[in-house]
Amino acid sequence: MIVSALLTSLGINFGLCILYFTLYSILRKQPGNIEVYAPRLVAEGKSRQESHFDLERLLPSTGWVRTAWQLSEEELLSASGLDAVVYMRIFIFSLRVFSVAGIIGICILLPVNYLGNELNDIDFSELPNKSVDLFSISNVKDGSKWLWVHFCSAYLITGVVCFLLYYEYNYISSKRLASFYASRPQSHDFSVLVRGIPVTSGSSFSNQVESFFTEYHSSTYLSHSVVRRTSKLQGLISDAEKLYKKLTHLKSRPGQKFQRNGFLGLFGRKVDAVDHTEKRLQDLEENVRIQQSDVSLIGEEVPAAFVSFKSRYGAAIAVHIQQAINPMQWITEQAPEPNDVYWPFLSSTFLRIWISKLLVIVASIFLTVIFLIPVVFVQGLANLDQLEILLPFLKRVLSITFVSQVVTGYLPSLILQMFLSFVSPIMKLFSSMQGYISHSQIERSASSKVLWFTIWNVFFANVLSGSVISQLKLFLDLKNIPSRLAAAVPAQLLNVYLPKFETGGKFWPIVHNSTIFTLILMQTIAIGIFGLKKLPLASSLTLPLPVLTLLFNEYCRKCFLPIFHAYSAESLIKKDREDHSDPAMGEFFDKLVNAYSDPCMRPLSYSDNADRHISPLLGPAQV
Amino acid sequence: MIVSALLTSLGINFGLCILYFTLYSILRKQPGNIEVYAPRLVAEGKSRQESHFDLERLLPSTGWVRTAWQLSEEELLSASGLDAVVYMRIFIFSLRVFSVAGIIGICILLPVNYLGNELNDIDFSELPNKSVDLFSISNVKDGSKWLWVHFCSAYLITGVVCFLLYYEYNYISSKRLASFYASRPQSHDFSVLVRGIPVTSGSSFSNQVESFFTEYHSSTYLSHSVVRRTSKLQGLISDAEKLYKKLTHLKSRPGQKFQRNGFLGLFGRKVDAVDHTEKRLQDLEENVRIQQSDVSLIGEEVPAAFVSFKSRYGAAIAVHIQQAINPMQWITEQAPEPNDVYWPFLSSTFLRIWISKLLVIVASIFLTVIFLIPVVFVQGLANLDQLEILLPFLKRVLSITFVSQVVTGYLPSLILQMFLSFVSPIMKLFSSMQGYISHSQIERSASSKVLWFTIWNVFFANVLSGSVISQLKLFLDLKNIPSRLAAAVPAQLLNVYLPKFETGGKFWPIVHNSTIFTLILMQTIAIGIFGLKKLPLASSLTLPLPVLTLLFNEYCRKCFLPIFHAYSAESLIKKDREDHSDPAMGEFFDKLVNAYSDPCMRPLSYSDNADRHISPLLGPAQV
Repeated sequence: MIVSALLTSLGINFGLCILYFTLYSILRKQPGNIEVYAPRLVAEGKSRQESHFDLERLLPSTGWVRTAWQLSEEELLSASGLDAVVYMRIFIFSLRVFSVAGIIGICILLPVNYLGNELNDIDFSELPNKSVDLFSISNVKDGSKWLWVHFCSAYLITGVVCFLLYYEYNYISSKRLASFYASRPQSHDFSVLVRGIPVTSGSSFSNQVESFFTEYHSSTYLSHSVVRRTSKLQGLISDAEKLYKKLTHLKSRPGQKFQRNGFLGLFGRKVDAVDHTEKRLQDLEENVRIQQSDVSLIGEEVPAAFVSFKSRYGAAIAVHIQQAINPMQWITEQAPEPNDVYWPFLSSTFLRIWISKLLVIVASIFLTVIFLIPVVFVQGLANLDQLEILLPFLKRVLSITFVSQVVTGYLPSLILQMFLSFVSPIMKLFSSMQGYISHSQIERSASSKVLWFTIWNVFFANVLSGSVISQLKLFLDLKNIPSRLAAAVPAQLLNVYLPKFETGGKFWPIVHNSTIFTLILMQTIAIGIFGLKKLPLASSLTLPLPVLTLLFNEYCRKCFLPIFHAYSAESLIKKDREDHSDPAMGEFFDKLVNAYSDPCMRPLSYSDNADRHISPLLGPAQV
Repeated sequence: MIVSALLTSLGINFGLCILYFTLYSILRKQPGNIEVYAPRLVAEGKSRQESHFDLERLLPSTGWVRTAWQLSEEELLSASGLDAVVYMRIFIFSLRVFSVAGIIGICILLPVNYLGNELNDIDFSELPNKSVDLFSISNVKDGSKWLWVHFCSAYLITGVVCFLLYYEYNYISSKRLASFYASRPQSHDFSVLVRGIPVTSGSSFSNQVESFFTEYHSSTYLSHSVVRRTSKLQGLISDAEKLYKKLTHLKSRPGQKFQRNGFLGLFGRKVDAVDHTEKRLQDLEENVRIQQSDVSLIGEEVPAAFVSFKSRYGAAIAVHIQQAINPMQWITEQAPEPNDVYWPFLSSTFLRIWISKLLVIVASIFLTVIFLIPVVFVQGLANLDQLEILLPFLKRVLSITFVSQVVTGYLPSLILQMFLSFVSPIMKLFSSMQGYISHSQIERSASSKVLWFTIWNVFFANVLSGSVISQLKLFLDLKNIPSRLAAAVPAQLLNVYLPKFETGGKFWPIVHNSTIFTLILMQTIAIGIFGLKKLPLASSLTLPLPVLTLLFNEYCRKCFLPIFHAYSAESLIKKDREDHSDPAMGEFFDKLVNAYSDPCMRPLSYSDNADRHISPLLGPAQV
């Protein structure tokens, strides 16, 4: 790639960015678009439907950017929860890392590289047609003293990134604890999921849960709800949902209202269809209600149950100590939030979950490795000469300088991004089949999969292409990964998404680990490059750097990671004691008893409630 | 190596074995040797000192072998504890694996290999001078159908070994649980070790422990003892020990008794020396007693303490739940048995332990890698031609057939064993510097180190020597590893050792893991050999074998390993409830309060008690 191609690519990206900003700032002001740009405000009834017209509505404005950036963390926390705050912190962290790396790269390393070899031969008019390799470390002479600038940069960047990581880990940890202390009692803090309830003849799973927890957790046990195989009921409910959609579609046709008012004639058949569908929906709902009311019809019990306790500490004890003599029985884990529960795998056997997990791991590895083929193919295509040979009719078009710059500078990354956009949904599908019992676990697992996918492909594609030269580019690429995780900006977090569940910032350790991995990779590459550039002393002196980075990581793991896994006895007991004198706890416990009922068991009311489907993107508002 | 050299080596080993058995069976019957061969019986006062002479005493006998093998597991359990039983099981497991592998190897694979290439050309008179490679898989023709016998053997051996592993894991797990249920209350089940007690001005560590556990474990907290830096007191005690040894030495000189009875003259100076030493010892003991009685003189408190609870379950809760908000404070772990405590690292800081651990890991890896040099050197020396060149004066001796057979067949393994004998003590020294707080942890860690050392050196030395041929030998070598761990036979366990501490069979998972590793290695080698032997189908069909083995291992980890890490709530609560009605518990709790006092604080009485040093090999009998 030559310099002018890089600049063209940069220009296109910048132009597109300005265009999207402008479009967004105009479109968001149109009243008709409010359901698209601020569905949450609509759902919460906070939107002001202003219908008067003014010119300002058609002009781009920047006020919303200021509003978005001025938003304080407290506002974000109260509006969207801790996860949103952590997303913001990840975004800010990425910006900081990128700024530091960018400043060092552009202001120090780039001039050093450019001047590295041909100090007396600078011709700036020739610059656009020179290869970008001129700015990479490959341009520096073997054994040159200038390489020590790179050496210092490696130490400097590692130091700064580790400092930023420590600062964020510390900050997010304290936020996580503060948010726990400030929180109202939450069902999942008081509940555990038990699996592997032993089969005993003559006793239902429900009875066994009752007797086990009354025996061994007599002072803290509150209630339980055994999971049932409700696939039949789910089938009925999904049928009802389909019928309801059909009905809404039929009703929304133009002129339909007229017919409903008693006009017979040409459209009589349609009125019949509506009435018929309504009748079928009502029958179906009646059927669901009958099944819900009779325990024997719901579906058989499976050996899994949600067990609730009278205190958080009681639940924590049940989670952290192996319950039964046989480690395969009475397996406990912290319950997810009631809305976060992913029901399909709760009724699966241990073996099925195990096999699913294995297959998913194999499939993920397969996808990750096999993806290299289209990437290499596309990258090869983007090579201008080969493209001209393969598609000779393009020869004339490609001879235009601008077009060739777009094709070599912009097209490869565009195509790669297009391919990459398929990966996230596939990985999420894989994760959902892996046996997880909560949506948040699925999301986190999918993130990790996409992350390792990206690292592997960027790294391996690079090794395959065989040039040590482009490794500096790789380093800058990888630095970008945390920001990929942080695709959310405030304006959107506030107005578009209603959080469906809250992980309490559990995404941060993934970002931390991937950043550490990136640092180690950068350092390893630096050691290799110093070796190739015949500066073995720099190579040896870089060796302590990965060791120190790993030690730093180990320290953070000891110091902060436990806070993201579980709350301490001290926190739990303090919080429990605070609640002890709270008169509202009685009501909470009443609710807790039914918090973990299967969604199939909730009353169905499609035929009465037509407004149900106006809800934000991420999930229905919780009743 | 040629066949006759192998047979010579076998003959020497067998001869030495018979010799040692004969010597042992005669020497053990001599009354004067009873303190060597059965020190435990002497210590327990069970030995019968028969002084009448009979001829039978001078003849070798085999009765003791029968007695040793007839010993039931119950007898061994009651006499020497669960660890001894598990050692026996490891020994039996190794014998079974070796028998199966040996039968398959000698009866099936060896004939197949020998007949593999030259079916029409068997000359048994030539056999002794042929290479042992004749019996290895290298002798089988490429692509031969006979290789499928090897393929079947790999599956058969894996199946049998996995079955035996499952059987033993299950058996030892149940024994471990049974031994827990049968045990009397033990201090370490009721106690935890707390480290990272926070520093607060104006409050001693002891006060802080008291207030923290009274606050958060009010119903189960019993007592605590804070660890103190007692190096000064330890110095005094070790001085006293040295003086005591000197005194014993002085007193035991011939004629000494006479002088003590009042004879002055030539030996007057020696009487003075004895008196002087006795005086110094008494002064030292007095000094120790003064220091022990005054808290301010003992040594400053360190931020670590043993905390005891009123129930096992109470202690388990404190161990399994992170105690403090700050994960670096109030770090708990299960306390070792009082005799098992290794005191030096209790007063170390977190950072010092961390650095020690790091240095030990580096040193162990260094030793493991660097050991290859003497091994390769010795193996090269054992090569006859090189030996003759290096040491020309040996030429005549080496030309004798028997000598050359000994040198090539027996010497290399003898020298290797000699070198290996230095490794165990070094690894144990390393482990003791790694920051462990119990002797049993040090022993287990040292075992693992020696194990990986052996695997690495056997495997890597083999790869370096470059012959795929000797890999079958390697496979048989590795199969032997579990038996190396089990160097104990009953007779010795019963009469020689008094167990100093009991791990409850925690050694077994190490044996399990190393056996699984061995299987995977064998399977990997098999896949490689089938490939080299141009039978790619067999290679591909062997691929599922390591996958299945790893799945089996994962299943065992889920099913049995938790039993070796901690006891379940069910077991603990049941046991606690049983004890609840036991009147002896009051007395136990009284003892428990002082169970974890520093050994420095025990009363010293060298000058009064001269018999103290007659105690069994492994450690003093517990008072």
